[in-house]
Amino acid sequence: MTETGDESQRLQESGPDLHSLPSPALVLDRDRMDRNVARLSALIAGHGVTLRPHLKTAKSIDAARRIHPDGPGPITVSTLAEAEYFAREGGYTDITYAVGLDPAKAPRAVALCDAGVDLKVTLETAAQAAALGEAARGAPRKPAVMIEIDCDGHRGGLTPDDPALVEVARAVVSAGLTLAGVLTHAGASYDLNDPEALAQAAKNERASAASAAETLRASGFECPVVSVGSTPTAHFARDLTGVTEVRAGVFMFFDLVMHGIGVCAVDDIAVSVLTTVIGTKPAKGWILVDAGWMALSRDRGTSKQAIDQGYGLVCDLAGNALGDLIVDQANQEHGIVALRSGSSAALPDLPVGIRLRVLPNHACATGAQHDAYNVVAGSSEQIVAVWPRMRGW
Amino acid sequence: MTETGDESQRLQESGPDLHSLPSPALVLDRDRMDRNVARLSALIAGHGVTLRPHLKTAKSIDAARRIHPDGPGPITVSTLAEAEYFAREGGYTDITYAVGLDPAKAPRAVALCDAGVDLKVTLETAAQAAALGEAARGAPRKPAVMIEIDCDGHRGGLTPDDPALVEVARAVVSAGLTLAGVLTHAGASYDLNDPEALAQAAKNERASAASAAETLRASGFECPVVSVGSTPTAHFARDLTGVTEVRAGVFMFFDLVMHGIGVCAVDDIAVSVLTTVIGTKPAKGWILVDAGWMALSRDRGTSKQAIDQGYGLVCDLAGNALGDLIVDQANQEHGIVALRSGSSAALPDLPVGIRLRVLPNHACATGAQHDAYNVVAGSSEQIVAVWPRMRGW
Repeated sequence: MTETGDESQRLQESGPDLHSLPSPALVLDRDRMDRNVARLSALIAGHGVTLRPHLKTAKSIDAARRIHPDGPGPITVSTLAEAEYFAREGGYTDITYAVGLDPAKAPRAVALCDAGVDLKVTLETAAQAAALGEAARGAPRKPAVMIEIDCDGHRGGLTPDDPALVEVARAVVSAGLTLAGVLTHAGASYDLNDPEALAQAAKNERASAASAAETLRASGFECPVVSVGSTPTAHFARDLTGVTEVRAGVFMFFDLVMHGIGVCAVDDIAVSVLTTVIGTKPAKGWILVDAGWMALSRDRGTSKQAIDQGYGLVCDLAGNALGDLIVDQANQEHGIVALRSGSSAALPDLPVGIRLRVLPNHACATGAQHDAYNVVAGSSEQIVAVWPRMRGW
Repeated sequence: MTETGDESQRLQESGPDLHSLPSPALVLDRDRMDRNVARLSALIAGHGVTLRPHLKTAKSIDAARRIHPDGPGPITVSTLAEAEYFAREGGYTDITYAVGLDPAKAPRAVALCDAGVDLKVTLETAAQAAALGEAARGAPRKPAVMIEIDCDGHRGGLTPDDPALVEVARAVVSAGLTLAGVLTHAGASYDLNDPEALAQAAKNERASAASAAETLRASGFECPVVSVGSTPTAHFARDLTGVTEVRAGVFMFFDLVMHGIGVCAVDDIAVSVLTTVIGTKPAKGWILVDAGWMALSRDRGTSKQAIDQGYGLVCDLAGNALGDLIVDQANQEHGIVALRSGSSAALPDLPVGIRLRVLPNHACATGAQHDAYNVVAGSSEQIVAVWPRMRGW
């Protein structure tokens, strides 16, 4: 795995470090990311199934290359713009678009196939299948179809026992399309924090998808792909019999929500927001920083967990958490850092100009507020690479 | 006020409308925006003071031109990147940067002055003044200084009676800089919803800023600018004696938080997110749409108000609210539309493919998720212009 040679070289010689990079900025610890990727890759390989990373979290071809150093592999995306980006920039061709298809987007899905992508789209109604079939009529290559399965009442999809399942499969074939398989997501696993309950959620996710696939096969449909996935269940699954692939996204960076669920340690979290102290209010126990919700996002995913991390956990420049210090409130470009409610610690002396790093509640949401990752590696404070992020739909 | 001629013409002839624009997308109703701008402009002119719009909400030179059709006027920004953008793209020269100065950003502030901008920066410590003075040493044009005043314990700044106020003013002058004035923001007004309480908040904001200015003048400092502002207090102020300018940002678009405070009607809200139905779950009372938090933002600003609007209020394509229908939950690219808790209305039949518009909780946060405004005007569904938004720091 090599950096983009010249650019990286230049940065190492004369580029910014964590002291000189303008704040706020998104920082990615590449070693932590590599460790997270290696950990889940080994787990999934141990089950003998395929890891199809969900790149909605990273939205970066450079990050994707750390997962697939030997060339493009199978990926999941949440928008057609992501599919177009990863196909164009990285030569990715095995792409599953895991959000229910808006019929108006069917021509764009077909165009991706024309461009050489083996695209799988997700749907749950005969109307979507008919719209896609219509858009793909006469096309030499057509998107294949994943039927969305609802395993835990969390979002969309058909329950495995819904009679509509076979009807939708019939509509797919009638529309001249290939049924690739079934796809489910254990979104309810995000509300758990107990290893046994997470293992049960993974078991239920597996059973739901496998059962839906069996129903389709019993009705005469091939159903080669059985796709499951969420970062929590991917890490806690004990058995993936009947499953062919696992999707997960946030696993590569992790975040405070994943820490609260029990999937990772705080020092596995690979993304943070660099910020600078711009004011203090000792009488109120406040330290004002230049990372507000524009830099951190409005995500408050830990607010329902056992430990509420506010808008993020505050670390020193080396990435070590400063005890109970969190971003307690956020305005657009102001963060108010304070000790967690109930803390007996003393407010550290952090005068104007001091730089800090904030670990995010939700890596996907915080990443989306930024246009690039400033990559650090090892214990150096040097920025060794800048990885652009894509956005839009 | 004219559109950028050719581009606008082309769009009117053959461009997308609300039926063909890919969703999700940010839509701006220009007539509503113009009405909101005219309303506050008239109110502030009635007080005989200057309106210095805060362009952190719009982040668009095209939107700014609707406020200043006769050429660049005084503006407020929340980042130096905004100052650079409005100076470069629109020729704006009278700019107040209303976030406390990170000392490391001082050279960039000086560079803006070199480029011809009359920049006012905000600070609250002698250390910031010294850093700015050092960066500006020998520069032919230097940033002027606004001292931040804390009028309601909401954020940063010095209270009007803080002895540090005069010390900081002295540090500004000692650093070879000009003290332009004082600046405060009645952030606590966002927690109110009663006209009398809002008028009181405006009175307190005015009194705090005017009192701080008097203290400085009594100590021999000129303090020509007395700057106040928040969208709620700007609309409810009865007297602005001693104030020279009012800052406000979200007033130009409004949003559901402002509606909850009582500053605007629902049909004053000028921004919305176009979305498409991608699934239904009648048994759960759910309609799934392709606007999740990536398109709507994670902002839940109405969650503490009398009416919780979830992630946004759902409207038809013409922009009319559909009763009690809100975006109740949001994943990254999925919104779950449902009736507001306690509603006795029936869930409307909105099959896959139907398009809707969602009014946001917080226009600043929702706008930040998008790269451009798709502008509509009159009752037409045609997109008459596309206004890019800037981002970053």
